[in-house]
Amino acid sequence: MVIQEMTEDECGTALGQTDFGRLACARGHQPYIVPIYFSYDGKQLYGVTTLGQKIEWMRSNPLVCLEIDERTSHYQWMSVIVFGRYEELPETPEYEGARTHALEVLQKREMWWQTACVATEHREQRPPIFYRIHILQMTGHRAMPDVIEAATVDAQATRVYR
Amino acid sequence: MVIQEMTEDECGTALGQTDFGRLACARGHQPYIVPIYFSYDGKQLYGVTTLGQKIEWMRSNPLVCLEIDERTSHYQWMSVIVFGRYEELPETPEYEGARTHALEVLQKREMWWQTACVATEHREQRPPIFYRIHILQMTGHRAMPDVIEAATVDAQATRVYR
Repeated sequence: MVIQEMTEDECGTALGQTDFGRLACARGHQPYIVPIYFSYDGKQLYGVTTLGQKIEWMRSNPLVCLEIDERTSHYQWMSVIVFGRYEELPETPEYEGARTHALEVLQKREMWWQTACVATEHREQRPPIFYRIHILQMTGHRAMPDVIEAATVDAQATRVYR
Repeated sequence: MVIQEMTEDECGTALGQTDFGRLACARGHQPYIVPIYFSYDGKQLYGVTTLGQKIEWMRSNPLVCLEIDERTSHYQWMSVIVFGRYEELPETPEYEGARTHALEVLQKREMWWQTACVATEHREQRPPIFYRIHILQMTGHRAMPDVIEAATVDAQATRVYR
């Protein structure tokens, strides 16, 4: 397996090609991970949710980590890790422009509203909370099979189709 | 979409059926996520890796969070979140039994050694570090399509096969 570091441009491209990842926040010394849907406008990450543990923790400590990955096989995968800062976009005149932009970015994703609505359906009625994550640092790694591993994969494929 | 809480038994079964998840640790207020392979013996989680940011952070703060998930569609998924405590299993007489057990548990997973070896190949030579994660709390959720969503999925499937 050959592992390569991804450039910041490649990490950005990968973020733009997916809408699903895992977000970690922390309170005290305890980290907490939740799977989330998000949208990326090339600069920041946008999400919508309802009040819950994740939001409460990010309000008390805005430092977060988002991770996305894609695994084709043991030998072929990529993973991008973003260190970021959570910012809520409240319904105030000051944030009107940011909320409008968030909505535009989020609407490009199919069923973007669903996460917030499901939470609302199954708990009590809660208003949607829009937020963005400012990217502070972004790193990524990509793995490809080496010559021996590629040959093994080919041999396995041949066996299957014989 | 109907979301159900999973019982602790169901969470344990889900952990036993996979070997891949995302692990979050935290230093100061900054959380950090890494994808990991792990093994579960019904009580604790076991892993092997080499020295790096993840190990350094978990040594300074052993509180971690492991997340696994499985998505069949927007409407059908499950996610389990484990709050845990990292414990390293050093090569000392005191830990001999724990290391032997860790190795037994890890060996049940195909290519269990690979994560450690790849890290070794591509950085300088570093000895493998065995660790276990004590489970402090475990929660899980499972989503299924509701009647309307199930009908939509069926209609889409019919369109595809027409």
